Amino acid sequence: MANPTAAMLVIGDEILSGRTRDANMHYLAGELTAVGITLSEVRIVSDDRDAIVAAVKALSAAYDTVFTSGGIGPTHDDITADCMAESFGQSIDVRADARAILQAHYDKAGTDLNEARLRMARIPADAALIDNPVSAAPGFIIENVHVMAGVPSVFKAMVASVLPTLTGGAPMLSETLTVYRGEGDIAGPFGELAKAYPSLSMGSYPFQRDGKYGANLVVRGQDAVLLEEAMGKLSEIFA
Amino acid sequence: MANPTAAMLVIGDEILSGRTRDANMHYLAGELTAVGITLSEVRIVSDDRDAIVAAVKALSAAYDTVFTSGGIGPTHDDITADCMAESFGQSIDVRADARAILQAHYDKAGTDLNEARLRMARIPADAALIDNPVSAAPGFIIENVHVMAGVPSVFKAMVASVLPTLTGGAPMLSETLTVYRGEGDIAGPFGELAKAYPSLSMGSYPFQRDGKYGANLVVRGQDAVLLEEAMGKLSEIFA
Repeated sequence: MANPTAAMLVIGDEILSGRTRDANMHYLAGELTAVGITLSEVRIVSDDRDAIVAAVKALSAAYDTVFTSGGIGPTHDDITADCMAESFGQSIDVRADARAILQAHYDKAGTDLNEARLRMARIPADAALIDNPVSAAPGFIIENVHVMAGVPSVFKAMVASVLPTLTGGAPMLSETLTVYRGEGDIAGPFGELAKAYPSLSMGSYPFQRDGKYGANLVVRGQDAVLLEEAMGKLSEIFA
Repeated sequence: MANPTAAMLVIGDEILSGRTRDANMHYLAGELTAVGITLSEVRIVSDDRDAIVAAVKALSAAYDTVFTSGGIGPTHDDITADCMAESFGQSIDVRADARAILQAHYDKAGTDLNEARLRMARIPADAALIDNPVSAAPGFIIENVHVMAGVPSVFKAMVASVLPTLTGGAPMLSETLTVYRGEGDIAGPFGELAKAYPSLSMGSYPFQRDGKYGANLVVRGQDAVLLEEAMGKLSEIFA
């Protein structure tokens, strides 16, 4: 049976402007692969209402599960929660359950739960909260979309809160053989091997290192025995 | 006048599986920002024909210019060129101009231009070639889509070949003030300042560092004088 599919939506001008390099996508990709969920698509959009709503609707309809990162803080450019409510036709306001979590957190820290911080309790009406053990302000699940923070430490904590609730498939196993030859010499025999193992996925990822060309030949699949067999043949071919 | 818009399409299973961390997106984002082209959206899809064609069509229609990376090598999983031909209803075959470039390159290296390498001369009928000073095999421009290699050194070289041919806008300038306070204390006054300068874009990018919370307050715009004025006020507010 095919594994469940997922998409990620990264929300943030700072990545599109080149100011910041995204870390959350790479992290989520690894976590999903480990539990047998196939990350099929990633989109990165700016802090723009129309762009966010369009992407959420498209990804939510196309994949089993969607994960978003960014835009749920207290500042004026944090518009993700409102966009999610709009995407699914839900109302949004400060919710008592989210407010209580923030109140307890800031009381303990002796910090005022001011108007800005209260924005982080704005949650769409029918969403379920995602626990945030790092900085309290919750993420939320609306339909099949998991809405999480952009700060990497908080994002990771929310992924840890969410992953056990998801049903994965058979973990995707992968093995890599690094070959220091041009891809043009690799392509023929590697393509033949790929044809002989249609249930395995084989990809060639070329690189240039110290002026030499090579490629990482990656074989992926869910059947460990078949994977080992194919890797054995691959090693023979390029010995 | 609004700057030209661009999108990027990254093609490659290796990024979605978490095996590789994309470097080309971050590089392109910086280069485009510097020449006044707004990178509005990025999509990452797997080596899947339908996914690639759908993304190319959507992005090509929505933005002035599109850049792709990955999938133009000689191995069986390199299907980008064929997908581009399909996306724009063009035929594709080994083209004499591309073949001549490869022939000259491999003759010089004393390497056989075998069947696999010849796949890299498969170019859609009406596309213009993009120069590849690193490893010869050309990229190409089809309609408003610039099709480039995934290997970072080759991608960079192709970006350098292409950028001078694009019309940019006024470069987007940006200044950053790092404030070691919680975003909840920053949000009120920062939001007020953003309202006072509607032609500037202001974003808050929170972080957690050594157990302390802070945020990078980024102000972006094309008017250097206005930008300095706003940064002066920002510094006063958070002095």
